[in-house]
Amino acid sequence: MPKVSNEHRERRRRQISEGARRAFARWGYEGATVPRLEEATGLSRGAIFSYYPSKLDLFVALAEEGQERLLRIWLDEGFEGVLRDAASNPEWLSMNLDVPRMLRDDEELRARWQKFNPALQAELTTSFVERQARGELRGDLDIETLGNFHGAILDGLAVHIAAGFPVDVEGTLELLRSAVAPK
Amino acid sequence: MPKVSNEHRERRRRQISEGARRAFARWGYEGATVPRLEEATGLSRGAIFSYYPSKLDLFVALAEEGQERLLRIWLDEGFEGVLRDAASNPEWLSMNLDVPRMLRDDEELRARWQKFNPALQAELTTSFVERQARGELRGDLDIETLGNFHGAILDGLAVHIAAGFPVDVEGTLELLRSAVAPK
Repeated sequence: MPKVSNEHRERRRRQISEGARRAFARWGYEGATVPRLEEATGLSRGAIFSYYPSKLDLFVALAEEGQERLLRIWLDEGFEGVLRDAASNPEWLSMNLDVPRMLRDDEELRARWQKFNPALQAELTTSFVERQARGELRGDLDIETLGNFHGAILDGLAVHIAAGFPVDVEGTLELLRSAVAPK
Repeated sequence: MPKVSNEHRERRRRQISEGARRAFARWGYEGATVPRLEEATGLSRGAIFSYYPSKLDLFVALAEEGQERLLRIWLDEGFEGVLRDAASNPEWLSMNLDVPRMLRDDEELRARWQKFNPALQAELTTSFVERQARGELRGDLDIETLGNFHGAILDGLAVHIAAGFPVDVEGTLELLRSAVAPK
């Protein structure tokens, strides 16, 4: 068998992930059939599935990649950056519209989801702990409660954006700041 | 044609709406096929579609009914009641999992959605205006921003509940109270 360079493999993987993300965003998980994935990536099913063992594995890899991207923005630019990015990149959000139903019906998948990007998750927790220690975040609630509140606001806005409703990012950020400010 | 009593029609309509809600929650909008709707309601397609002209009309009627129920709880018990109800009645939430994608692809449906329950919506707006006038809600943001923030939190928690993740209703309510309190 010919040896394929790492660079070539990396390029192919990116081609698959970009095309597949568009297909999942447009058609949903079920609707993104293998022929549609072939069309969106410009590659044969053989090529696609030589990089990912199954459609579910491809979807999960893209979801983990999307979360990695979001966590990096959160760490670099704060939650403001996350919300502004969500409002201007609805494709990343649309890809996730089927996720709640998929997770609800599949406990194993739900467990997999919670283990995405452990190093970045830990870094985010540390940044919350440090902000709380510096008195920038209220100290009467634990980090998990504060973090989940951010998560709920993000997912709620994501639903509104994906559905095509206008959202008020600045108003939301102002309310969030008051919610988490030290009393 | 025999005359059917109003009471009988009302009972039948309730039988359809309860069964169909279970079917949509379990299978999703696409997955709730006509045979599954027949099985879930215990009625023939002829009977079902004599009450609702199409599957979409049936779904929209249930969604409007769900929103009416939510608005009544909000008006009677406050937003606390809404979140506690959401956490304990995941079936109402699961029915809505396909809604963002459906609305995104259908501008007419999105417009229909925004016109649900106008009298109750107006009553809710009035209650926000009154709370603001009494100094219970901050006055530096408009009612729409405050209302949408509640909506985002509800939809975000709804996604988490429907996906099977635990949610912290009391912690969320505490943060929400700080967010909207007068400064």
